[in-house]
Amino acid sequence: LQAALSNNSDGAAASSREAFRQAVVNTLERRLFYIPSFKIYRGVAGLYDYGPPGCAVKSNVLAFWRQHFVLEENMLEVDCPCVTPEVVLKASGHVEKFTDLMVKDEKTGTCYRADHLLKDFCKEKLEKDLTLSPDKAAELKHVIMVLDDLSAEELREKLKEYGITAPDTKNPLSDLYPFNLMFQTSIGPSGLSPGYMRPETAQGIFVNFKDLYYYNGNKLPFAAAQIGQAFRNEISPRQGLLRVREFTLAEIEHFVDPDDKSHPKFVDVANLEFLMFPRAEQLAGKSAKQMILGEAVSKGVVNNETLGYFIGRVFLFLTRLGIDKDRLRFRQHLPNEMAHYAADCWDAEIECSYGWIECVGIADRSAYDLRAHSEKSGVALVAHEKFPEPREVEKLVIVPSKKELGLAFKGSQKMVVEALEAMSEKEALEMKATLESKGEMDFHVCTLGKTVSIMKKMVSISMDKKKEHQRVFTPSVIEPSFGIGRIIYCLFEHSFYTRPSKAEDEQLNVFSFPPLVAPIKCTVFPLIKTQKFDDVAKIIAKSLAAAGISHIIDITGTSIGKRYARTDEIGVPFAVTVDSTTSVTIRERDSKQQIRVSIDEVASVVKEVTDGQSTWGDVMWRYPTHSTAHTEEE
Amino acid sequence: LQAALSNNSDGAAASSREAFRQAVVNTLERRLFYIPSFKIYRGVAGLYDYGPPGCAVKSNVLAFWRQHFVLEENMLEVDCPCVTPEVVLKASGHVEKFTDLMVKDEKTGTCYRADHLLKDFCKEKLEKDLTLSPDKAAELKHVIMVLDDLSAEELREKLKEYGITAPDTKNPLSDLYPFNLMFQTSIGPSGLSPGYMRPETAQGIFVNFKDLYYYNGNKLPFAAAQIGQAFRNEISPRQGLLRVREFTLAEIEHFVDPDDKSHPKFVDVANLEFLMFPRAEQLAGKSAKQMILGEAVSKGVVNNETLGYFIGRVFLFLTRLGIDKDRLRFRQHLPNEMAHYAADCWDAEIECSYGWIECVGIADRSAYDLRAHSEKSGVALVAHEKFPEPREVEKLVIVPSKKELGLAFKGSQKMVVEALEAMSEKEALEMKATLESKGEMDFHVCTLGKTVSIMKKMVSISMDKKKEHQRVFTPSVIEPSFGIGRIIYCLFEHSFYTRPSKAEDEQLNVFSFPPLVAPIKCTVFPLIKTQKFDDVAKIIAKSLAAAGISHIIDITGTSIGKRYARTDEIGVPFAVTVDSTTSVTIRERDSKQQIRVSIDEVASVVKEVTDGQSTWGDVMWRYPTHSTAHTEEE
Repeated sequence: LQAALSNNSDGAAASSREAFRQAVVNTLERRLFYIPSFKIYRGVAGLYDYGPPGCAVKSNVLAFWRQHFVLEENMLEVDCPCVTPEVVLKASGHVEKFTDLMVKDEKTGTCYRADHLLKDFCKEKLEKDLTLSPDKAAELKHVIMVLDDLSAEELREKLKEYGITAPDTKNPLSDLYPFNLMFQTSIGPSGLSPGYMRPETAQGIFVNFKDLYYYNGNKLPFAAAQIGQAFRNEISPRQGLLRVREFTLAEIEHFVDPDDKSHPKFVDVANLEFLMFPRAEQLAGKSAKQMILGEAVSKGVVNNETLGYFIGRVFLFLTRLGIDKDRLRFRQHLPNEMAHYAADCWDAEIECSYGWIECVGIADRSAYDLRAHSEKSGVALVAHEKFPEPREVEKLVIVPSKKELGLAFKGSQKMVVEALEAMSEKEALEMKATLESKGEMDFHVCTLGKTVSIMKKMVSISMDKKKEHQRVFTPSVIEPSFGIGRIIYCLFEHSFYTRPSKAEDEQLNVFSFPPLVAPIKCTVFPLIKTQKFDDVAKIIAKSLAAAGISHIIDITGTSIGKRYARTDEIGVPFAVTVDSTTSVTIRERDSKQQIRVSIDEVASVVKEVTDGQSTWGDVMWRYPTHSTAHTEEE
Repeated sequence: LQAALSNNSDGAAASSREAFRQAVVNTLERRLFYIPSFKIYRGVAGLYDYGPPGCAVKSNVLAFWRQHFVLEENMLEVDCPCVTPEVVLKASGHVEKFTDLMVKDEKTGTCYRADHLLKDFCKEKLEKDLTLSPDKAAELKHVIMVLDDLSAEELREKLKEYGITAPDTKNPLSDLYPFNLMFQTSIGPSGLSPGYMRPETAQGIFVNFKDLYYYNGNKLPFAAAQIGQAFRNEISPRQGLLRVREFTLAEIEHFVDPDDKSHPKFVDVANLEFLMFPRAEQLAGKSAKQMILGEAVSKGVVNNETLGYFIGRVFLFLTRLGIDKDRLRFRQHLPNEMAHYAADCWDAEIECSYGWIECVGIADRSAYDLRAHSEKSGVALVAHEKFPEPREVEKLVIVPSKKELGLAFKGSQKMVVEALEAMSEKEALEMKATLESKGEMDFHVCTLGKTVSIMKKMVSISMDKKKEHQRVFTPSVIEPSFGIGRIIYCLFEHSFYTRPSKAEDEQLNVFSFPPLVAPIKCTVFPLIKTQKFDDVAKIIAKSLAAAGISHIIDITGTSIGKRYARTDEIGVPFAVTVDSTTSVTIRERDSKQQIRVSIDEVASVVKEVTDGQSTWGDVMWRYPTHSTAHTEEE
């Protein structure tokens, strides 16, 4: 469905998106926001470095994440290793299921993702084959649309039906087979302990549940959080920074009583209104719509308050970073997208030149993960609710008579006993009733593969009253999981614009990062190269440092216009120009408005507007405006 | 040498160190500062998680590192992937040389580090064999002392001589062989691109030198920095948190002109005085001594100002974190410890219960790394110095006469030509002189493995005058490299102490973290359980949050003394006790002194003392002291 949404627009829109992306990416690479890793060795697909401004943006985004989630919500932050032994990822299901379907060029051995080949084939046909019948075109479009939902069998069929061959060589392709996306390694020198680089940070939290629950005073709900690297050995990475082989995840695991998913702070976000794309709208072919979060929860569109609370918090997080709220939507997973155990799942999707991109997943994973690790490790990962008063509960008691069963079934006795003990409450009560009325009953024993006859004397079934002092249960997990690199890339696109240069016939690039995110908050320029202005610049730099504001001085002799352009291009929100020894100008990046401020006030004014205590509009009122004529025009 | 220093103290001291370590480690594990990773699956040696307070300490240490180094020194921070293709680590020498020597139990296949077995054997003999002759004892002590310097051959000999067998089974051991300590993996689906998890972050910076130099305006010196995970697949990890298989490194690569290693800010650290342990003192069997850094540089004990500057900055960094300066020393590498290319190297060593531990290495690595990558990648990683005026320089010109050499050496001509062209200036000028005086000269050609006779007509050697506009050179690299986990562990030991409990006959544990490092800055306790005190506590919590101070509220009904003990044990420096609705007390952790402050001043006072604007002593003067009687005694 997603693929279709980003592909059925016409060619002109697509090429303008391409051109826009190229402009953004060129600027990002030229200013070292990021660098293809190991470039001097011709790089490795899907690996990127963050250069100095990119690294600063990333560390600002992570600091804000920690503030917005960990500190404001009192989460327990942990930090676990990337190297993970196989047993953990067997329990989580990754060893068996974390795969993509792959085919090989039968002669050269080159590997391809099977769905990529099918998609490329359909797209090329649609774009280039002028003889295509309308029926065939509709069919190909449908294939693209349902691509993500195809089973291995269906994918195999389609590759065969369309006679798809290896793209470069036209050689025949191998049968398709699953390729595990985890980087495998070996722990220790023996070669006998397989391990993997974690594909997500979540498992490190789940395996620590018992300790964290204790740390939290054995109380629910609580959330644990982790920021760290994760790894996916993609078959053939595409889409630049969006699909990479190593990336930073920030994940939250909020543990909650499955019987009470209310959230005390839900009221704080209930009035937020934004684009939501519920399951019903998707299935009806409609588009996303503005909804009030409180209503979405009360109407049951969103499964519960805690899930809703995190959706609201994620909305606030992303928009405060500078993501355009009109290009952000929360899309509910369709039943076939969701794991069988998940109660509900919403993705925060951000629209960029690649289409709508999943940047945050917010899933109610129910008790799946804790149960899986309890089972595999033998350690109970459960919570306890102590009752204020002991409660009287009825409990099923099944007592098979081993003697009678032994006489009747001899060597099969053990299997019959186990089958009787394993009956559900419903089955047992039915048996009790039948035995009481008829004296005997047919009973199927799976482990024997046959039906036996159970007599009344062979088993006693009763409901006993018992006092219970507590309830023991496996908590549900609500997991907001953030792809930090994807968020940052979308932020780059949403922040980028160009404006004409006055001096020359060219476009100037600007990143309109909010101060929170900007890699550097302030630049300082002496207007002309003279010792006294350089000295003032140094005094200002010192006061900015003391106020904790990241800044750079640019004393190169180039024109002030060029220096503004250079600083706009890495998204510095404020520029101080030293044009006298008593007062200086402060220029705001997007409006290009300037105010005149005395030297000893500069740091406090810049701090006010970068900390978010005041807006530029606020300070504009308080200081005289400065004509831009003598600076921008140069 | 190191091993000896930590082993020749007597048994009593050793067991008191053990007891101290056990007390620290018990507290750290119980309060979840760290957790053996994947504990519910019985863990993996050498992998640890940071739990909530440990994770907070780590993130405080990293934030301060970024402030102290990256921001204050305007370094270029980058963020590169952990997955690294083989070619990069072949160039750096890691594929060939990053190994430990290993032996296997010949029957069970269990692996051991060869030096560990030898050390354990010697230690056990010394401790338990009462029949040991004084000569033999001296020999075993000597082996322990020189353990790190033994060659593979010497190690093999010793294992054989002492008849060392596998420790658990007493089976014979295999011959020793090198085991590469990098975690190996495979990039992409083909299985044809070997890769490794990086063993250090430095290589990511070196391969980006060209872009970073450009980013810095093609100017030297500049420094790049990186914080990230590194991996070493240890054969058998020991020493708890000190030797682990995955750890956080913070590394700086400072690129500098090899002809000018002065540092403009050296004056700022020149007067620092601390424990240094120069090569001469170590070789003479003396101990470390107090030295003034400026003198150490001016006397040539430390090779250059830039190296000295970083030594000073590292001293400030560590002591501000809370490392005890009397248990911190800077030890110079002995010639045999240092790589052949290194100009000088100093380790910041911190003394803890395991002995003196290398926590920061500060090395002048000369041009080695950049040259290695230039050579392997074919991309010139060099700097340029433009001369203000073109300079006349003399340049060696060697022109072998291919014709004459071909006639004389036929098929070997190419090798002789290359050998002649590869002569150093000194060799060439000697040859010139010899050929002019004698007409011929013997010349060894390595690639031929023999000496040939060179005649005057076969080569022309001259010094030509040339105008040069710039100098092209490979920068030197000065590399301070920080093992963050080791620093944090030593900090735990240096901060830990116990004091008697007044109420009971037990010891209370305290971590005396400075506010900068403390995982939580302030706790808030209502003295007794009542709604009005709870409300005040909430108001204070809100004002602390607004001031950006991490805090927790403890409203459990336990005695205030127990609550103080609990908060002391995770190193919270300040505790606010709500005992009225107008004013409250603030207690300092180590002195247990309390002052009384009005509710609306609490946040600003706590901020002052946690930010480092004021000391506790400063604020003590300004507010009335509160008697501790009614709180601590409970």
